[in-house]
Amino acid sequence: MGRPVYEGLKVLDLTRIISGPYCTMLLGDMGADVIKVEKRGEGDISRTYGPYVNGESMYYYVLNRNKRSLTLDFRSEKGKKLLFDLAVEADVLVQNFKPGTLAKMGLDEQRLREANPGIIIVNISGFGQEGPYAKRPGLDAAAQAMGGWMSVTGHPNQPPTKTGLFAVDYMTGMYALIALQGALYERERSGVGQSVEACLLDSAVSVLLTGIPYQQLLHHTVSRMGNRDGVTAPANVYQTKDGEWVLFIAGSDEFFKTFAMISEQEFLLEDERFGSIAKRLEHEDEVDQYVANWIGQWSAEEVVEKCDKAGLTCAKVATMKEVVENPQLKYRNKIIEIEHPKVGAVPMQGFPMDYSRSRMSIRYAPPTLGENSEEILKDWLDLNDGEIRRLKEEKVI
Amino acid sequence: MGRPVYEGLKVLDLTRIISGPYCTMLLGDMGADVIKVEKRGEGDISRTYGPYVNGESMYYYVLNRNKRSLTLDFRSEKGKKLLFDLAVEADVLVQNFKPGTLAKMGLDEQRLREANPGIIIVNISGFGQEGPYAKRPGLDAAAQAMGGWMSVTGHPNQPPTKTGLFAVDYMTGMYALIALQGALYERERSGVGQSVEACLLDSAVSVLLTGIPYQQLLHHTVSRMGNRDGVTAPANVYQTKDGEWVLFIAGSDEFFKTFAMISEQEFLLEDERFGSIAKRLEHEDEVDQYVANWIGQWSAEEVVEKCDKAGLTCAKVATMKEVVENPQLKYRNKIIEIEHPKVGAVPMQGFPMDYSRSRMSIRYAPPTLGENSEEILKDWLDLNDGEIRRLKEEKVI
Repeated sequence: MGRPVYEGLKVLDLTRIISGPYCTMLLGDMGADVIKVEKRGEGDISRTYGPYVNGESMYYYVLNRNKRSLTLDFRSEKGKKLLFDLAVEADVLVQNFKPGTLAKMGLDEQRLREANPGIIIVNISGFGQEGPYAKRPGLDAAAQAMGGWMSVTGHPNQPPTKTGLFAVDYMTGMYALIALQGALYERERSGVGQSVEACLLDSAVSVLLTGIPYQQLLHHTVSRMGNRDGVTAPANVYQTKDGEWVLFIAGSDEFFKTFAMISEQEFLLEDERFGSIAKRLEHEDEVDQYVANWIGQWSAEEVVEKCDKAGLTCAKVATMKEVVENPQLKYRNKIIEIEHPKVGAVPMQGFPMDYSRSRMSIRYAPPTLGENSEEILKDWLDLNDGEIRRLKEEKVI
Repeated sequence: MGRPVYEGLKVLDLTRIISGPYCTMLLGDMGADVIKVEKRGEGDISRTYGPYVNGESMYYYVLNRNKRSLTLDFRSEKGKKLLFDLAVEADVLVQNFKPGTLAKMGLDEQRLREANPGIIIVNISGFGQEGPYAKRPGLDAAAQAMGGWMSVTGHPNQPPTKTGLFAVDYMTGMYALIALQGALYERERSGVGQSVEACLLDSAVSVLLTGIPYQQLLHHTVSRMGNRDGVTAPANVYQTKDGEWVLFIAGSDEFFKTFAMISEQEFLLEDERFGSIAKRLEHEDEVDQYVANWIGQWSAEEVVEKCDKAGLTCAKVATMKEVVENPQLKYRNKIIEIEHPKVGAVPMQGFPMDYSRSRMSIRYAPPTLGENSEEILKDWLDLNDGEIRRLKEEKVI
């Protein structure tokens, strides 16, 4: 394998919790030198989030591999100066503070650009750097609520439902990364950096598909449909004989025919209520009943096997226990382990993408607070032992 | 504004439906020259997906701006040759066929690399190019089921629930883009391309946060918690006096204190059941009841305003109608309109990220089928009018 794609790229990471740390972790996975600057004595607040194993936060752990940690007292003048000096050396600065905070930390953009014209500044926030909601606290759940996700998730006649994952946080980190990668590519030509921006609300709204034209052109408000998809039928979740749930879809006419055959319900093909996708959608309750009756005769394992043979989409609704045992994920090495000094091997998600030639690897386990302060100040700023000792004595690092 | 970041980058887009088209649309948004190659006479199957306005698919429309369309008969020898010739000119080729299909179309990777050593090939699939599930049809819902999303979404003691958006499809397109942007950056140094890969299952699993260590180290299977988040309390969805729903979170001790004050329930602060995050989680039913009682006294508008003033997170669960009217999205121009020749202005999601200097713009409306075939063959392959006329006569394009 060759060298990582972003080897040598210097990233100053001032982010906390999920969106920002995920952005910089992916950069680290792709080989960048990511320096996570954390508040002296406290660190990223997510270090206090559970679950804990031997007192160590797993939450922090799964979001901060391939980074080194430097602690800094942001409020002291010397701390501010060190932060500025580090930013002068950086190719990329990533932050997800509330809008306006960065300047207060001494990292005024204009001043920084004068000292480092190539720097790319990545601003991540809940609602964007400007606008009427800019100062509101940005949380994944708020973006799911405000961005329309909750109103379309869950069952009709039941409350709106949150996706049980911080998916919008993650997506925002990904958009921030996409934007900064574009800016890096452009910098190869222009020689100059710029600022890029991503936020939770925009990210949530980016995936509404036809929800916006449905509303504005057809005046139809898309709402929650349970596990149906509104595009084709049958497409739903059904219970099996052993009390498990499977997701089953037989969308096209051809797949519906296959379903009728393997379920030995060929009479469905003669029934004009089911003669096209549009008609099956119109009679979806009845379609669902025929599918449910068949699936209810078998265990989840049996029905998945039958469908797999017939080329139909059927997947058991996997519990986390089943996810970690998934044979495809094992084959592709998508659940990895990273050694933690106090915990031992910690299992977590692997790399979400693959390169044929460039290496992706775990170069650093998620750092303990301030684990790499000394070496970073030597690497990036050429400080000597005496200078570092004084910074420690003065409680700057 | 300056030039777009990927201006001049040539992208050969062989993708259909969501994941691939979203990847290439973002490239187009960032200025790349994206040629969408579609099957002659049919095109991307999503052209047949509703909703329709004046007979035109809105589904296709929201996923294919900033591209030009070329139709091709993939099965004919001349069609295969044209496709290969185009790939020789391309910087990037993106495909989301079933594994193995690309080679059958004459685009054998090794042969293509010999002719075009710089090409970056982006392979998108449901479960990866290899492994026991590689040949299964890849659908967003199947990845949500198999990847653990459904088991953690919805209410306890109720069926697992699908996120009502094709979020995994979108994320997969985004990971594919992140990977290819990395490969492009690396190519600036090495001069050589490579293949990159993203798939639905890996993407779904990438955002499980602590689900994997919870399972494997603590033997606790994370499951669905309704609208709670399992990390702090109160954090839930509550009904307002006017029958609407709001998402409300007051996670920290400080925020809980603020909640007690503005709801005039200061006695909560004396109650030892609510004295810390851990205790509030332990007594979450009671906490929720106190919050629900307060929120139930006000309209959604009133409670959001009260919380906003107090700095607490509270967001109305927005319907699509409210999303399109969101003042923050309006301020930031995040719902845009693109002119369709038969429909007029079509509203859709705007750009999910921003550059301070490089331009993002709509250079092309989503193309009609084969709209740009001639100009593309002239631009990319220098064909002359006679050659193009013959290809048309022979029904190759």
